[in-house]
Amino acid sequence: MASLRFSLATIANRVGGELRGEESAEVSGLGTLDTAGPNQVTFARSNEFADSAKASKAGAILVSEFMDIERPQIRVSDPDLAFAKTAQLFHPRPRATTHEVHASAIIDESANLESPVRIGAGVVIGAGVKIGAGSVVGPGCVIEDGVVLGQNCVLVANVTLCHDIQLGDRVILHPGSVIGADGFGFAPDNGTWAFIPQIGTVQLQDDVEIGANSTVDRATMGATTVERGTKIDNMVHVGHNSTIGEHSIIAGFSAIAGSVKVGHHCMFAGHVAVASHLSIPPETQLGGASVVLRTIRKSGRYMGHPLQPLQDSIRWMRRVIDIEDLDSRVKGLERE
Amino acid sequence: MASLRFSLATIANRVGGELRGEESAEVSGLGTLDTAGPNQVTFARSNEFADSAKASKAGAILVSEFMDIERPQIRVSDPDLAFAKTAQLFHPRPRATTHEVHASAIIDESANLESPVRIGAGVVIGAGVKIGAGSVVGPGCVIEDGVVLGQNCVLVANVTLCHDIQLGDRVILHPGSVIGADGFGFAPDNGTWAFIPQIGTVQLQDDVEIGANSTVDRATMGATTVERGTKIDNMVHVGHNSTIGEHSIIAGFSAIAGSVKVGHHCMFAGHVAVASHLSIPPETQLGGASVVLRTIRKSGRYMGHPLQPLQDSIRWMRRVIDIEDLDSRVKGLERE
Amino acid sequence: MASLRFSLATIANRVGGELRGEESAEVSGLGTLDTAGPNQVTFARSNEFADSAKASKAGAILVSEFMDIERPQIRVSDPDLAFAKTAQLFHPRPRATTHEVHASAIIDESANLESPVRIGAGVVIGAGVKIGAGSVVGPGCVIEDGVVLGQNCVLVANVTLCHDIQLGDRVILHPGSVIGADGFGFAPDNGTWAFIPQIGTVQLQDDVEIGANSTVDRATMGATTVERGTKIDNMVHVGHNSTIGEHSIIAGFSAIAGSVKVGHHCMFAGHVAVASHLSIPPETQLGGASVVLRTIRKSGRYMGHPLQPLQDSIRWMRRVIDIEDLDSRVKGLERE
Repeated sequence: MASLRFSLATIANRVGGELRGEESAEVSGLGTLDTAGPNQVTFARSNEFADSAKASKAGAILVSEFMDIERPQIRVSDPDLAFAKTAQLFHPRPRATTHEVHASAIIDESANLESPVRIGAGVVIGAGVKIGAGSVVGPGCVIEDGVVLGQNCVLVANVTLCHDIQLGDRVILHPGSVIGADGFGFAPDNGTWAFIPQIGTVQLQDDVEIGANSTVDRATMGATTVERGTKIDNMVHVGHNSTIGEHSIIAGFSAIAGSVKVGHHCMFAGHVAVASHLSIPPETQLGGASVVLRTIRKSGRYMGHPLQPLQDSIRWMRRVIDIEDLDSRVKGLERE
Repeated sequence: MASLRFSLATIANRVGGELRGEESAEVSGLGTLDTAGPNQVTFARSNEFADSAKASKAGAILVSEFMDIERPQIRVSDPDLAFAKTAQLFHPRPRATTHEVHASAIIDESANLESPVRIGAGVVIGAGVKIGAGSVVGPGCVIEDGVVLGQNCVLVANVTLCHDIQLGDRVILHPGSVIGADGFGFAPDNGTWAFIPQIGTVQLQDDVEIGANSTVDRATMGATTVERGTKIDNMVHVGHNSTIGEHSIIAGFSAIAGSVKVGHHCMFAGHVAVASHLSIPPETQLGGASVVLRTIRKSGRYMGHPLQPLQDSIRWMRRVIDIEDLDSRVKGLERE
Repeated sequence: MASLRFSLATIANRVGGELRGEESAEVSGLGTLDTAGPNQVTFARSNEFADSAKASKAGAILVSEFMDIERPQIRVSDPDLAFAKTAQLFHPRPRATTHEVHASAIIDESANLESPVRIGAGVVIGAGVKIGAGSVVGPGCVIEDGVVLGQNCVLVANVTLCHDIQLGDRVILHPGSVIGADGFGFAPDNGTWAFIPQIGTVQLQDDVEIGANSTVDRATMGATTVERGTKIDNMVHVGHNSTIGEHSIIAGFSAIAGSVKVGHHCMFAGHVAVASHLSIPPETQLGGASVVLRTIRKSGRYMGHPLQPLQDSIRWMRRVIDIEDLDSRVKGLERE
């Protein structure tokens, strides 16, 4: 990647911004306001960073249309997004452009690998697996029988895909993620637990991303589904038969039990727990460490345990912490 | 599995139910009330599903003895359990019936593999390991020196068993689970942390099941033990020197610290935390997101943080959320 | 290890204790007060264990200077630490003393392995990797391009090190840990999420230990850092661009979001959550299941959700649980 270079004009065009600087000037990488040099591009999120931007040695700065500085710059409506898109130029997702299958990979002869794909060392691919063109399967991944991957998927390393699950295109799975393990289903049987075979599947739709050591369990029957564009962080669990709606984002350590329905464009901060069989409506935002024990009827922002609308929860936290004061006041009243 | 077929008589016999339908009629699989066709069997958990059951096209329905419908049916006292048992007919646990060791597996010559076992691609098996007949070790598993597996165990894929731990018969370990990593033991040493070698072991008794990416740590001395029949979900941690009693069930994201004693037939909902050195009596049920900071003296149902008896906790949650109202009322009284 | 033997004089010298017993008497291992035999050494943490110590059959007991018993003993100021150091004699960290690279390991020709190192079966090592002398890389580990390991590191098994991260000396990584996966960074883009390439790194300094199935994410730019001597338990997440100060200790299931600064010598009990962009000052202790939603200004001991100073939190928990009583009392006052 070190050799990639782009002109400021190319970057301005990519991010839909207005260039104030030399069109043909080139940059070869990215930096922060503090660290970027003349060969690098950086960004200033808001006017809060105006002083740092003025002092920056960067070759160009992605700035908000409201910023007023005298530096080579590309003016955009959303510097964060513009920086993401610029960074993608320099660091695109891995994609197989030549067909490379490592000699140590063990691939069932009935597997169907489109060309080109890149299969890493020590990968194990079972019977009937299909892998779409452009996909990259990193070292140590295990893909059991009957799994289907779309095009341009990336399994970074040591990912486990259990049998017969389905991935759309451009699905990204980080190391240690386990997709399609048996849902946790047992029926009480006279003091013991009878296992309920989990014969459903998992569907990860296009552009889903799943973080390191996260798990999405197989449905009892039917499918556990993560809809297109949804991004899931590390150590998140999605239980059997749950559905996460499209373009949602779920931060680390969130645990979504079985048969939960999460709507589209939801945002969960970290460490959120959702009990089984609940629904969360579209565009709902849950604050960190929220515990959801009942279905949420109305889209909105919620937080806490007990869960409340965000502002109520913040006010409640301030109030409940003063329970001792309240108790004293009641004691005072009682004495009168 | 697609070719398995069973007569309704066989299924009725298996589940101990009364068949109302054609004894020799065969089914070849399972479905839900909505999706099952004439070749499939399904179940109706309760009278709540009576209408769906009447409309179902299933070849037979496992129903409660209290349901009154005119469809081919098998009447049982517990439709959930009956469905589990029927599903097990069609989808039994994997078991090695022929001896198959993949050419790529790396097996120390001192390891003792009974016959038949199935050892997958890329498996690594250390010195002195014993594996009982019928066991299946899936791709990518690492079994360190001195580990003992009983008969008919299943390590699905990418499981790590650290040295010298012991598994009973029919133990099921899902991908990414790590059994026998060092317990977290350090002694303060003049501003640094001296590691305490963890020289104990882990014992997973017969019929234990451990979910994906869960961990059971090795004891400092002695053993961390999961007793027979206990089922553990994904991303659960069992700390060093803890014991989980038999036939308990522990849902996802539960964290059990070190030296905890959990009794038999306990049930933990998800996201439960238990601090170290505590005891939880047999047959105790903990609700979702419970935090246990003190030993529980009496079996029962508990929930919350602070932990309370279940009904108290539910009532408390409703009450504490109104702290603002209470505060206003006290203010009102103070004004008088 | 079975053949290691040490004289009581050697042990007393190692732990800086006063031997009351036969200098040349040898022990060959460790046990608990109850289980240790004449060939084993054990320890008694405090006078609470005086009776057990008197009854112990151990060859020697590490005891506090305040204990008064008539048994072969080594008197020390800190029996826990002395036992740790004694146990380290019998069970030192693994270290490569001869150069052993398993034939099945797949090592890029540009990798630079010092001698001696021990590389296990099925290990995959990418381009430009450097591994310092004495290090042990267990079976199934994947080390991507450009990773640097110092000397005497131990990757137990099935560890994933993503590209270009840096480990100091004596870093211990337990199975399933994933270091350097992409930080969770996305920018909203017209109803979808644009990924922000994570081009920073991870630095694990000397003597860091990371538990099974834990994750430390790569920084967006710059580095996510775990400073020297810090010990992290199982299933802990350290988000992108965070720093954990030196000689801290973080128990299982703790989730530290992105851009958090944790000071040196902090102690987190299990199941702690810390929201992004916060600071926690040095020597701060957080109780189990604490939720940190604001920067902590002052070092100290804290607990709970809402987070409070430890003693306040304990008192608060007792008080808040009686909300119903408080409500009744207010009702009583209202009736008057």
